[in-house]
Amino acid sequence: MAEALKEAEAAAEIGEVPVGAVVVYDGEIIARAHNMVETNGRSKEHAEMLALEKAEAYLGRKWLSGCDLYVTLEPCAMCAGAMVLARIDSLYIGTMDPKNGMCGSIYNVACNDKLNHRIHVERGILQEECSSILKTFFREMRIYKSALKRNNNTSEDTDR
Amino acid sequence: MAEALKEAEAAAEIGEVPVGAVVVYDGEIIARAHNMVETNGRSKEHAEMLALEKAEAYLGRKWLSGCDLYVTLEPCAMCAGAMVLARIDSLYIGTMDPKNGMCGSIYNVACNDKLNHRIHVERGILQEECSSILKTFFREMRIYKSALKRNNNTSEDTDR
Repeated sequence: MAEALKEAEAAAEIGEVPVGAVVVYDGEIIARAHNMVETNGRSKEHAEMLALEKAEAYLGRKWLSGCDLYVTLEPCAMCAGAMVLARIDSLYIGTMDPKNGMCGSIYNVACNDKLNHRIHVERGILQEECSSILKTFFREMRIYKSALKRNNNTSEDTDR
Repeated sequence: MAEALKEAEAAAEIGEVPVGAVVVYDGEIIARAHNMVETNGRSKEHAEMLALEKAEAYLGRKWLSGCDLYVTLEPCAMCAGAMVLARIDSLYIGTMDPKNGMCGSIYNVACNDKLNHRIHVERGILQEECSSILKTFFREMRIYKSALKRNNNTSEDTDR
């Protein structure tokens, strides 16, 4: 999770919501990524999706059995669904996301008896650090936005 | 939906599970795609994901407000989540998917009060045709697989 946090830090540095993910196979990190939604202007470029894509490319197969994914923020429906489709073994989550999280917060897509693959999920790994980087980012964004509003009477969007 | 069905037919012709999707903006089809999971060996290449990507590229923006998506099969968690992130207006579904569907069958990701975008969903559009093409495909795959098993005592995977 410390490596996923480094990815989240890299995201914050370029103005992306700080979420990072790494994929581990056979004790080694085979893919790492951070949120790239704003940079690339594509709503699907969440850290987890990019990390899964890189892992698939690295292993040369569409299923990631034997792989574990570490992510600093609880995955949304899209990312949790992609993990089920990719059949990863385990998912380690930093901090939970009550507004969008689909691995226990709103629904539990990652581990659902009706689906044909269930992921082992552990939560709260480096929870404080993973939560703190997000809080800092959004606090700074709020300060930036209110300064911008004062100057231009406009606002910009900051959704992930 | 008739155009989404044409895409599903194109998928079946290349051995993909026949699911097709189109994105409509301002009364015009701006993106169309079918399932490409087996062909490209990537678990995320569902018809809806590819259609959303093409629509984003066509419009040059990450949000697809003003767009409607027509898909022959009820979207899974990944696809439904991607639609919420892309903020499409309406989703028109051909036939429901009790095993994987996340727009009413298992969960309802597309229209959930807790999420910050809710999609207008209509179901059962050309239901019989959308269901029939899937049933035919899986029946043929079962015949093919059992013939293969008889000959080689092996089996191949047919999951979407």
